[in-house]
Amino acid sequence: MKVPWVYISDLSKHEGEEVKLKCWMYNKRSSGKIHFLQLRDGTGFVQGVVVKGEVTEDQFLAVRNLWLEASLEVTGKVKRDERAPSGFELNVTGISVLHNPTDEYPIGKKDHGIDFLLDNRHLWLRSASQLAVMRIRDRVIWSAREYLHNNGFLLVDSPILTGAIGEGASGLFEVPYFDLGNAYLAQTGQLYAEAAAAAFGKVYTFGPTFRAEKSKTRRHLTEFWMIEPEVAFYDHKDNMTLQENLVSYIVQSVLQHCTAELAQIGRDTGPLERVTPPFHHITYDDAVIMLQKLGSTISYGTDFGGEDETILTQQFDRPLFVECYPKKVKAFYMKQHPEREDLVLCDDLLAPEGYGEIIGGSQREESFDLLQKRIRVEKLPEDSYGWYLDLRRYGTFVHSGFGMGIERVVAWVCGLPHIRETIPFPRTIYRLNP
Amino acid sequence: MKVPWVYISDLSKHEGEEVKLKCWMYNKRSSGKIHFLQLRDGTGFVQGVVVKGEVTEDQFLAVRNLWLEASLEVTGKVKRDERAPSGFELNVTGISVLHNPTDEYPIGKKDHGIDFLLDNRHLWLRSASQLAVMRIRDRVIWSAREYLHNNGFLLVDSPILTGAIGEGASGLFEVPYFDLGNAYLAQTGQLYAEAAAAAFGKVYTFGPTFRAEKSKTRRHLTEFWMIEPEVAFYDHKDNMTLQENLVSYIVQSVLQHCTAELAQIGRDTGPLERVTPPFHHITYDDAVIMLQKLGSTISYGTDFGGEDETILTQQFDRPLFVECYPKKVKAFYMKQHPEREDLVLCDDLLAPEGYGEIIGGSQREESFDLLQKRIRVEKLPEDSYGWYLDLRRYGTFVHSGFGMGIERVVAWVCGLPHIRETIPFPRTIYRLNP
Repeated sequence: MKVPWVYISDLSKHEGEEVKLKCWMYNKRSSGKIHFLQLRDGTGFVQGVVVKGEVTEDQFLAVRNLWLEASLEVTGKVKRDERAPSGFELNVTGISVLHNPTDEYPIGKKDHGIDFLLDNRHLWLRSASQLAVMRIRDRVIWSAREYLHNNGFLLVDSPILTGAIGEGASGLFEVPYFDLGNAYLAQTGQLYAEAAAAAFGKVYTFGPTFRAEKSKTRRHLTEFWMIEPEVAFYDHKDNMTLQENLVSYIVQSVLQHCTAELAQIGRDTGPLERVTPPFHHITYDDAVIMLQKLGSTISYGTDFGGEDETILTQQFDRPLFVECYPKKVKAFYMKQHPEREDLVLCDDLLAPEGYGEIIGGSQREESFDLLQKRIRVEKLPEDSYGWYLDLRRYGTFVHSGFGMGIERVVAWVCGLPHIRETIPFPRTIYRLNP
Repeated sequence: MKVPWVYISDLSKHEGEEVKLKCWMYNKRSSGKIHFLQLRDGTGFVQGVVVKGEVTEDQFLAVRNLWLEASLEVTGKVKRDERAPSGFELNVTGISVLHNPTDEYPIGKKDHGIDFLLDNRHLWLRSASQLAVMRIRDRVIWSAREYLHNNGFLLVDSPILTGAIGEGASGLFEVPYFDLGNAYLAQTGQLYAEAAAAAFGKVYTFGPTFRAEKSKTRRHLTEFWMIEPEVAFYDHKDNMTLQENLVSYIVQSVLQHCTAELAQIGRDTGPLERVTPPFHHITYDDAVIMLQKLGSTISYGTDFGGEDETILTQQFDRPLFVECYPKKVKAFYMKQHPEREDLVLCDDLLAPEGYGEIIGGSQREESFDLLQKRIRVEKLPEDSYGWYLDLRRYGTFVHSGFGMGIERVVAWVCGLPHIRETIPFPRTIYRLNP
């Protein structure tokens, strides 16, 4: 819709014109007769040059007294300036102060500790680096949805409040629920996605998921977003092809649309440009041998630690599928390997450059008997899985799917060491605020 | 990606060819030497005609013994048939049974009560009407995101697990959270969206929201999805224009892309075709007078009940904005009316045909002092709102936003009397399963 002001991202369309901005002042330099204002409006950043005599005396004085993050209405002429990051600057002709803070803005030029920044996350988001990360996050999510939408997938929102069901019994957040006892916050939407795949063929869920685990690593949040495609009649191999195509689409879309953002945060785009099919493949068995040769203390039959994943991905120049893990370290619903009873038809997709797991996927066990047996072996509450077993009772079918953690993808694409910056308001075991 | 089978939705591209389907049998009629199979694969429905002698004897016999919802691999020739809803049928040349249930499918042709259907929601989703509703839901969500994405809005996912903050103190689900006491499930992402609007200008949140209210009406779920745009420097009027444009875009997109689905569920599209700007406007004051004339017992100063909204919308041929409610029936963050201290600059958007509220929006109070006063008057925990007050401390700004309930929009667009069918797995005070 039309508004009677101009956004900074649109300044190039108004070269030579006088325009009005609504914005905040995020920085200022002054030298007697001239003020250089760094202005931001959420769409971009531009320098406004205020010269004594070109605005009223009152306005010039008001600018001298501005605190950081003052909100402003600024009019000025748009001038091309090759030295400016945006390519333009504004020769200010009028300025109206909407709100000048009475306190000093808490986030200054000095280095702040991460706890201070996270305590002030609502303000930290205003920085140029956080704008870049959030734009890349938006693009990752948009391109993932776009890929699936354009390929005939139906969005099926799975419930957050569920009965006792999920990946397993541990790490569940409990919620007292009226007269029905406890509900649990969903760890995954997958089981519901499987029901939907039987109804709609190609589906995906996309929502927040929850893990009440006391993990304190740079790869864990208690609340994170996960996209989970599930496809009727796809087997393990089809599933990996879909993952490869989806991840490549996302990365190439970010490269295409977020050039400025990647530059802002100093991301080397070389490794991202290589993210195209085909990805590398290795079996769990071979991966263990490779890791042991590289000095890892991993023993066969255990899951990889973060450090193992890091070492492994450093051996490859693009994402790596690790296939067919031991059954006992993976979730109950994964399909048993046809030739190796101790393995399952699953894959973890590890991002390169040491990032590690961004996707976990598998073909699902379609045999009623084998699935029921696994539920019993793992001592899961069989009653709660009655409806899930129904999917194997009425027209069971080969199907596969996976979950991709959005924050881990964003961290990798942005080249960030910790996922806490990849979500607007991160939740960890120590943090519920803001 | 290429798969070695064909989807029913693509049959028109294969007229005269022999193709392979992977599908389920949702119905069957037989007459001695011929079986008519109703087949579905999630992308559509088609009739497969199995004639004795055109498949093997074993196959013909196997078809006779099929139960509903058997999963099948069917090969056949695609034949144009004007009488078929899809325009095509399949002359079956081969059939392979992937899984024939040993039990009768619980959802038959007879009428089932709603509780039975909801208990079997994982199977009920396989019906043609539910496929239509879920496709319309997908389109509503896709078009809403598309509109905002194309208009420069940034997606900002707000947290689900929050401190004691939201619309107000009542109706919160509590979640024990490690050593930090209780977290609460978000009733809205708005407060976080306001922080993001100060950083990024035009934003929206879109996620599940939660109300632990004992509402048992046809318009309430305990878990529902809400899209919440929030825009820096938009006032009350700009906000309504955005709502009008967004809702019109969604409805016109459904009309364009979901013709078959609307027909499937028998929706009269006439009223939807009228959903274009400008919508109608009425003030709360005038609405009360109108309602009283129409026989409502509403007294000035109270909120409308569902019945009042129904009566009101029946007077208008397209959506209706009700503006400027009494402050005391609305949330604490709404901006005080500049000329009427007892009112706030808000709007509820009511869908026509008796549907009622689909959007609640407002300009936000940008005055630190007035907002702090309201927090104290409503006895909200001021400490929890410290970061929210910061937004008024550092460069406060005119801004507005709204929340649109996805399930209410889908119910209206589909012409459904109850919102429980508009979400894949509904949650009410009596229902957590499946």
